[in-house]
Amino acid sequence: MSRIVIALGGNALGNTAEEQRKKIDAAAPSLIGLIKQGHEIIISHGNGPQVGMIKLGLDTASNVTDKVSNFPLPECTAMSQGYIGYHLQNGILRELRKEGMPWYVATIVSQIQVDPDDPAFKNPTKPIGAFYSEEEAGRIMAENPGMVFKEDAGRGWRQMVPSPRPIDIVEKDSILNLLDHEFIVIACGGGGIPVIKRDDGDYEGVPAVIDKDFASAKLAEICNADYLFILTAVDRVAINFGKPNQEELTEISVEKAKELAAEGHFAPGSMLPKVQAAVSFAESKPGRRAVIASLEKAPLAMKGESGTFISM
Amino acid sequence: MSRIVIALGGNALGNTAEEQRKKIDAAAPSLIGLIKQGHEIIISHGNGPQVGMIKLGLDTASNVTDKVSNFPLPECTAMSQGYIGYHLQNGILRELRKEGMPWYVATIVSQIQVDPDDPAFKNPTKPIGAFYSEEEAGRIMAENPGMVFKEDAGRGWRQMVPSPRPIDIVEKDSILNLLDHEFIVIACGGGGIPVIKRDDGDYEGVPAVIDKDFASAKLAEICNADYLFILTAVDRVAINFGKPNQEELTEISVEKAKELAAEGHFAPGSMLPKVQAAVSFAESKPGRRAVIASLEKAPLAMKGESGTFISM
Repeated sequence: MSRIVIALGGNALGNTAEEQRKKIDAAAPSLIGLIKQGHEIIISHGNGPQVGMIKLGLDTASNVTDKVSNFPLPECTAMSQGYIGYHLQNGILRELRKEGMPWYVATIVSQIQVDPDDPAFKNPTKPIGAFYSEEEAGRIMAENPGMVFKEDAGRGWRQMVPSPRPIDIVEKDSILNLLDHEFIVIACGGGGIPVIKRDDGDYEGVPAVIDKDFASAKLAEICNADYLFILTAVDRVAINFGKPNQEELTEISVEKAKELAAEGHFAPGSMLPKVQAAVSFAESKPGRRAVIASLEKAPLAMKGESGTFISM
Repeated sequence: MSRIVIALGGNALGNTAEEQRKKIDAAAPSLIGLIKQGHEIIISHGNGPQVGMIKLGLDTASNVTDKVSNFPLPECTAMSQGYIGYHLQNGILRELRKEGMPWYVATIVSQIQVDPDDPAFKNPTKPIGAFYSEEEAGRIMAENPGMVFKEDAGRGWRQMVPSPRPIDIVEKDSILNLLDHEFIVIACGGGGIPVIKRDDGDYEGVPAVIDKDFASAKLAEICNADYLFILTAVDRVAINFGKPNQEELTEISVEKAKELAAEGHFAPGSMLPKVQAAVSFAESKPGRRAVIASLEKAPLAMKGESGTFISM
C-alpha cells in the first residue's frame, strides 16, 4: 500500500457550481480507482478560477451595496476551500458508496505558513479569476490601484497575485490524525490559506495564493507520502512541446528534470511549476516519486502505463 | 471531564472580516476558559449574516458581470464554513499558544441531512443576510421571484429561507475521530450544509439554512456530549421578558421549559428556538444538560454561577 497525495487543478473544476459538480462526479471514479488498487489518498486542489470569482464577486457587490463588505483574499481562499471541499467530499462519498467501500472523507480547512520576505510578494505571478481582454484589464487596473493584470499564456488577461512558497501546514496534525485512521482527507485546498507567523507567534493571513502544486508537494512531504500525483489535462510531460520533434517523457531523474526546465522546455505558469513541484517532492527523500499524469489516467499511471515519473 | 458542544451565534460574529476577527479574538478566552477547567469542547456556529452576505454578494455581482456565476445557498453555506472556521481556528489557536496549551484545532466541512418532506420547506422562517427597509425588501422581492422577505423581530426586513430540522450529520465519523484524539473540533458551521438523501443514496444540497441551535443539539447528541452550551447576548433566559415582573431562570426542567414556551414567554426566531434546541438535547438522554448563557460568562456558567440550566 502506498500513500498518495493527489493535486487537482482548479481550472479542471469548472466555473459554476453546476459545472464543478459534474466535473467532480466525472473525476471521482479515477480517484477511487487508486483506492481500489489498495492505496491511501489525500486530495489537494487548486482554486484559481474559484477564488478569483469569489473575490471579484464580493468586491463588485461591495461597490454596489453597503450590505456586502469587501473580503480579503485569504478569507476568499477559506471560502473556496469550503465550496470545493463540499463538492469533492460529496462526489467521492457517492463513488465510495456505489462501490460498497466503507471509507470516510473529510475536508480540513487548512492554513499554510509562508515567509513574509518571500520575493514573490514583490512580483505577483499567480493568475486568479476570469480572463479579460487587454482593454477590460486596463480599465480594472485604472479603477483599482494595487491590482495587477498580466497576459496569461495566450488565453487572455488575468489578475495576478503573489505566490509565495509554502513552509509549513498549520493544521498538519489534524490531517495526519485523520489519515492514520483511514480517512480520505481533502486538505490545503487552493494551495492553503496563506499566513505568516508574526513575532508574537500568531498567524496572520496575507493577500496571496500559494501554487497548489507546491502546496501539494509540501503536504506530501509532511504526510510522508510515497507518491505525489499532479493531475492535469495531458497524459505526460513533453519536451519540444508543440514542435515536430515533440517527445513524451515516461520516467526521468530529478537531475534530468532540472536540466530540461533550465533549457526552457516547460511553460512558466503551466508545466514549469508542476515539474518544479514534482522535483521538490522527489528530491526531499530517496524513494519518493512524483507523477505528472492526466486526471482520467491516474489509475493507469499508478500501474506504470501512463504519466511521467520523476524520482531521484 | 465533561464533553461540551458550544453553539455560537452568527450575529455575534460581526459583518466584515475585520469585525469577525476582533469578535472571535474577544470570545476566545471564554472558550479556552472551559478547556482550562478540564473540559473537552466542540464548537458550532451560526452564519445568518455571513451566508446572506455571500449569497447576496455573488448574486448581485452575477447580475453585473458574466465573470461571476450565481451560487446556490448550500454552496454559500459551505463557503461560510471555510470563512468562519478559518477565523475561529486561528483565534482559538492563538489563545491556546498564549496559555501554553498543546491542543490542536480543526474545522470540518460538514453536511447535515434533512427530510425533503420537512414542513419548513413550505414556510420559510430563517432570516439571513442584511436588514432592509420595507420598501427595499418589496423591491427586491418584485425583482427576484421566489425570494421571501419578512419583518424580523422589529429590527427590519430580512430574507427568509426554509429552516428544516437536522436528522443526521454526514461527517460525524470525522468529527468523532478528531474528538477522540483530543482535538478541538469546529463543525456544523451555519447549521451545516443542508442535504437530502436521495433514493439512490446520494446526498444533494437543498436551498435552506438549518437553525444552528438545532444543529448543535444534534451534534451534541451524536458526540454523546454532557453539555450543550447555547451562547448568546444575555446571561440567562428570562420570563416576562422586558416587563416589570421579568424573572431570570437559573435551573428549570424540560417539562417546565416546554410549559413556559407554550405560554409564549420566548420570542420566535430569538429565544424560542434556543429553548427548543436546549430541550431537544436535554430530553435525548438522562444526565444531559443544556445551558443558555452569555458568551463572556460561559466559564462562570460551567461553575453554576451564570446561565440557565435545562435538564430532565
